[in-house]
Amino acid sequence: MSLPNHFELLATDGPARTGRLTTPHGVVRTPAFMPVGTAGAMKGMHWREVRDAGADIVLGNTYHLMLRPGAERIAALGGLQAFTGWNGPMLTDSGGFQVMSLSELRKVKEEAVTFRSHIDGAIVELSPERSIEVQRLLGSDIAMQMDECVRLPADRSDIDRAMQLSLRWAERSKRAFETAPAGYMLFGIVQGGDLPQLRQASAQGLVDIGFHGYAIGGLAVGEPQEVMLAMIEEVGPVLPKDRPRYLMGVGTPDDILEAVARGVDMFDCVMPTRNGRHGMAFTRYGQINLRNARHADDSRPLDETSPWPSARNYSRAYLHHLVRSGETLGAMLLSEINIAYYQQLTDGIRQAIAQGTFADFRARTKSEWEKGDIAPR
Amino acid sequence: MSLPNHFELLATDGPARTGRLTTPHGVVRTPAFMPVGTAGAMKGMHWREVRDAGADIVLGNTYHLMLRPGAERIAALGGLQAFTGWNGPMLTDSGGFQVMSLSELRKVKEEAVTFRSHIDGAIVELSPERSIEVQRLLGSDIAMQMDECVRLPADRSDIDRAMQLSLRWAERSKRAFETAPAGYMLFGIVQGGDLPQLRQASAQGLVDIGFHGYAIGGLAVGEPQEVMLAMIEEVGPVLPKDRPRYLMGVGTPDDILEAVARGVDMFDCVMPTRNGRHGMAFTRYGQINLRNARHADDSRPLDETSPWPSARNYSRAYLHHLVRSGETLGAMLLSEINIAYYQQLTDGIRQAIAQGTFADFRARTKSEWEKGDIAPR
Repeated sequence: MSLPNHFELLATDGPARTGRLTTPHGVVRTPAFMPVGTAGAMKGMHWREVRDAGADIVLGNTYHLMLRPGAERIAALGGLQAFTGWNGPMLTDSGGFQVMSLSELRKVKEEAVTFRSHIDGAIVELSPERSIEVQRLLGSDIAMQMDECVRLPADRSDIDRAMQLSLRWAERSKRAFETAPAGYMLFGIVQGGDLPQLRQASAQGLVDIGFHGYAIGGLAVGEPQEVMLAMIEEVGPVLPKDRPRYLMGVGTPDDILEAVARGVDMFDCVMPTRNGRHGMAFTRYGQINLRNARHADDSRPLDETSPWPSARNYSRAYLHHLVRSGETLGAMLLSEINIAYYQQLTDGIRQAIAQGTFADFRARTKSEWEKGDIAPR
Repeated sequence: MSLPNHFELLATDGPARTGRLTTPHGVVRTPAFMPVGTAGAMKGMHWREVRDAGADIVLGNTYHLMLRPGAERIAALGGLQAFTGWNGPMLTDSGGFQVMSLSELRKVKEEAVTFRSHIDGAIVELSPERSIEVQRLLGSDIAMQMDECVRLPADRSDIDRAMQLSLRWAERSKRAFETAPAGYMLFGIVQGGDLPQLRQASAQGLVDIGFHGYAIGGLAVGEPQEVMLAMIEEVGPVLPKDRPRYLMGVGTPDDILEAVARGVDMFDCVMPTRNGRHGMAFTRYGQINLRNARHADDSRPLDETSPWPSARNYSRAYLHHLVRSGETLGAMLLSEINIAYYQQLTDGIRQAIAQGTFADFRARTKSEWEKGDIAPR
């Protein structure tokens, strides 16, 4: 059954696309990078800074939120937006991925996954139906189907089994989502590991079921970049052109450029905030390690041409000092600088596609990264 | 020798005073609470938030800054204001107190203190002259003399010896400060433990030497509040009325109210940020522990009448969740809420003194604290 389409394609430039996705909490400009606010908070950032940095939409983790503070509690408090104060679109994952990566004693069965909470040791069951129920309670604008993600490399039989299970869960997820009010969306997730045939079968199976949008999951889990890009290319022709495409958990700025070049519209990744907490800055010069002693006496900012004030107004020497001293402010500043850089990148991508100059933009951006950082003073 | 006076007394209300202290980097309204930015950063806060919360002046710790990133380095980078981006008045302590509390193998001699750095184990010497040199290199608007602070309870002979040593160091500090440019200030520090006679002798000795302002040190080090207040009362009549008085390392909101009632003009304390990191909020209802389960389902803000947006716009349930989850945002929000409360308190104090209603303000503020927090919903 076909679902209403809330995605509007504004322009294409080769396979690259730019558009608008309209959610109950606002419009998302695509290609979009979604900062990850794991447990209802962006690590080291105020929500106003996330918004100011240019993010239209953020991601929340169902696994974390259902365990603490609990989906029913958040619903009683008015949903994720009212609870957190982020007054914009939110996408939530299904919780399945983190059950696999964070919890102990997990048992995957046809009916549901059972696991032990990493917080209090409680035994919790998560079925596709419960995952949708939780995401509805959270009030997320875009819910994800529950799937099983296999870490690569893996055997064909394991990848196939997980992909088939994910397809059956996709069907159950869609049924469970039927009562959701108009405007809210459910995305299916393509699985199939690094095997083109299985990827195509997964995508076709999801299209037959019909979703508001389609995610490509199970990538950026240990495989080389070219494998990831090849899988996107396999899946692209199968997916309907008029629906948004979301590459889950990706990635570096280069991953984003390359995936956009292959028709991807949405991304999420913890990299900008996690690397920021470890003293790494993303800039037009590539990634810079502020922990490095070369910055200790350098009064120049990270990037004097950045549109983000903190990248212009604080010296490398100060950022170096904060990182070396373990000051929270160092993590705070680098997190916002990195989120702003990712938004600056997707903003540039959107403009370039609209103007039909994406190939130029991609080449210029890469050549700036390759030039590397300015020499120490 | 008398030093120029940069303090203007605007109004008094009993012993309570309100005034203006003019520094090279701006005016400080008194009574003033100075947030502590230990190592050139406020823990969990952007400088713009410190300013927005109403702080006119902040404190930096000489001990931390001289060890990392180093005073000569900060000077080469343009001084503390240029280095940190805090474009307002800064007071620095002498470093002596933290040598005593943080470093190992410290040896106090007449000439200098020798200690082992807690960062890299290096042997460092700090003399009164070097302390002034470091504070001049940092570019602090208000420098403090080096002193020796004795933890209470202590023997009279120990307190006396430390007080006499501090007086001799005061004289050396003043000589070392002679070359400082006009407008920069040096404060002497009254010692003498919990012994009225020694406190008076210390204050008189400092007045004879002559300083821009006078601090009361060696309090809030383990003694009951009434001892602290009694010592302020002993010292008050000895100090010149036209100079600012600074009670070091104090304290709770109640300590501040009571010390202002006894003529103190300036305060500093890590309590608002440190307690904030531990889930405690200062409000007009007194101190509130957000870790407490009573807040888990409470959609009401901490204080809907607060002038600080975060105290009005986030629910207790959300703050509780952030604290329980160990999210940085919890520490960030509670730190700014607490700093804003301290500034709100001193703002109220200043207005009340100017209007001659300080006694009322003090009684009303205390009765609100005593009423306690609103009942759980």
